[in-house]
Amino acid sequence: MPVDPVDLTARLIRCPSVTPEEGGAITLLADALSAAGFEVHRCDRGGIANLFARIGAKGAGRSFGFNGHTDVVPPGPAQDWTHPPFGGLVQDGVIWGRGAADMKSGVAAFVAAAIDYITQSPLPADGALVITVTGDEEGSSVDGTPAILDWMTDAGETMSACLVGEPTCPQVMGEMIKNGRRGSLNAVIEARGVQGHAAYPDRARNPVHALVSLLAGLTAQPLDAGTAQFQPSTLQVTSFDVGNPATNVIPGAARAMLNIRFNDAHSGASLSRMLQDRAAQVATDMGVEMTVEVSISGESFVTPPGPLTDLVQGAVAAVTGVTPALSTTGGTSDARFIKNHCPVVEFGLVGQTMHQVDERVDVADVIALKAVYGEILRRYFA
Amino acid sequence: MPVDPVDLTARLIRCPSVTPEEGGAITLLADALSAAGFEVHRCDRGGIANLFARIGAKGAGRSFGFNGHTDVVPPGPAQDWTHPPFGGLVQDGVIWGRGAADMKSGVAAFVAAAIDYITQSPLPADGALVITVTGDEEGSSVDGTPAILDWMTDAGETMSACLVGEPTCPQVMGEMIKNGRRGSLNAVIEARGVQGHAAYPDRARNPVHALVSLLAGLTAQPLDAGTAQFQPSTLQVTSFDVGNPATNVIPGAARAMLNIRFNDAHSGASLSRMLQDRAAQVATDMGVEMTVEVSISGESFVTPPGPLTDLVQGAVAAVTGVTPALSTTGGTSDARFIKNHCPVVEFGLVGQTMHQVDERVDVADVIALKAVYGEILRRYFA
Repeated sequence: MPVDPVDLTARLIRCPSVTPEEGGAITLLADALSAAGFEVHRCDRGGIANLFARIGAKGAGRSFGFNGHTDVVPPGPAQDWTHPPFGGLVQDGVIWGRGAADMKSGVAAFVAAAIDYITQSPLPADGALVITVTGDEEGSSVDGTPAILDWMTDAGETMSACLVGEPTCPQVMGEMIKNGRRGSLNAVIEARGVQGHAAYPDRARNPVHALVSLLAGLTAQPLDAGTAQFQPSTLQVTSFDVGNPATNVIPGAARAMLNIRFNDAHSGASLSRMLQDRAAQVATDMGVEMTVEVSISGESFVTPPGPLTDLVQGAVAAVTGVTPALSTTGGTSDARFIKNHCPVVEFGLVGQTMHQVDERVDVADVIALKAVYGEILRRYFA
Repeated sequence: MPVDPVDLTARLIRCPSVTPEEGGAITLLADALSAAGFEVHRCDRGGIANLFARIGAKGAGRSFGFNGHTDVVPPGPAQDWTHPPFGGLVQDGVIWGRGAADMKSGVAAFVAAAIDYITQSPLPADGALVITVTGDEEGSSVDGTPAILDWMTDAGETMSACLVGEPTCPQVMGEMIKNGRRGSLNAVIEARGVQGHAAYPDRARNPVHALVSLLAGLTAQPLDAGTAQFQPSTLQVTSFDVGNPATNVIPGAARAMLNIRFNDAHSGASLSRMLQDRAAQVATDMGVEMTVEVSISGESFVTPPGPLTDLVQGAVAAVTGVTPALSTTGGTSDARFIKNHCPVVEFGLVGQTMHQVDERVDVADVIALKAVYGEILRRYFA
């Protein structure tokens, strides 16, 4: 029995699955896939609900995967919304609610396309269709897609290629595929000097001056000029805090936070070393102590133009009439984990309202997205 | 009847005169001076108790003034003290308590010296002795010594020269006279940019980067190399605050505070202009808005070496056997107001324990200080 992707999107929106709550969304998908003949496993970890589903042979040579998430960011005050954020209202060709764009519609579209496909065409003997859906992409992700991939490795489950159904189109349906994402790291830099009276700076060591000097150096010029697949890396100081109310006191400590979005000219480790080295140099020059604590949210990934990107580009163009560009812009996604398992690309809806009040998506785009995903499967298994 | 400076110091310490509380201290002095024949006026303003006292002719050609304050900084937890901070204990040659060094002993010494002097020697016909004591030197000072000077101007009262009895000796009684002080100003700099997502810095304007750039420029090199009477001016960034907890958000605003201690190569106005100009330049370069709010605590003052400094140096050397150096180091004092009325210098005790727990002073030093002040009066009226 075919699944209507619009109805499934609406039903998923009605599950209040703000990270880390499951809200009934993973269960709803597990039931639908199980009813369609998929083998379904829950790979829950650390309080997060995760779903693995496969149809076709385990470890098949051609095992196509879809990945997505059902968790959503908080809606904020419900009264700010035109329609209830967890209402899933479908009206005048628009689906309303938190997750409509990011990315319950994407999940509904690939689940509906997968069920349609296996209903209409027998999988080849070396074919399999894998669906992975996590309840933690908007949060720390630690127990989300990585938990599914860990479980798959242990269970001998594989994907030969994977498509992440995140919204990827800036304005118009079909215009952009993400074949890579920059990496991201956060650093907390603490400087400790010697507190003192502002009238006697020779008896103190001002940690603010040292931190200002370090950050001025780090922000004075770009980290690189971009690479073949990527725009330039960027470094943004996101906070700087001293909290000293006394105008005549040189403070003893200062703290800054920064975020780096980096391309394939760097790695988390190389940037970490760079920050440590620069901080150590300034600390020595200015007679203060500095510590740099780095946390790497994700390394950059890129799937170079090739068979997988060609296949997806062709399918998108055939269905929408728009030839999508390949892009590596934007934030991070769970593709950063999947790239260690198999080639991965991302394609989905227009994401303009994601994370905003009155998040919504056009019914026509969800129907088109399901058609694109179906066309991808036909071409992949052809 | 002579006044014992040690006893008067102890009695003043027992007045709990934490700014802006009078605590009985001004009244105690008014009574003592009145009993000795001084004309006494209270020049209270804005809730602050202030005292003016004169003996000798109003507007006399040789009118020597002493200035000091009876207010003190808070003692902190009393249990941290070896002896109660407002106990005024005199034991084994030491006077204990808040204000023992800064500067109830100084006030007691000049009051005792003045009463001694007029008791022993008739003032010359063109001579007068003026004593001004405020209850707000440790606070904003707005209604302290300026209120006394305003009242004096209105009343036709004058000083020909003035000695401020603040502690001026770093280690050894007699070693330093202050013949000037640097000026001080505080500035609050606010930068406003455009908030945004850390992954899309091209859609935001990071105010932290602009503020870091401005402050790095301001702290990279000294403001000057010092002048004939002064050490180099100094600029210290005392706080820098953003308060952004989100690692993936470029903040919309940032704020820093700085303090400048400046010599006679600058004025509050010239530094204010410099800060405004530099901020405007960075704001233009980096596409953010910046505001600089300057508050000038005091302009620099200097009393060049000459008759007054010679007289005080000679008196100190005669009494203590130590020839004092002239210095313009350290923080601000009420001399910054008095310098607009007459030549002013500062001489007092060793200030090592000022503002600290267990503030205390040697009995011998207080007795020596009274002797110095008496010798100054003898030489001035000779």
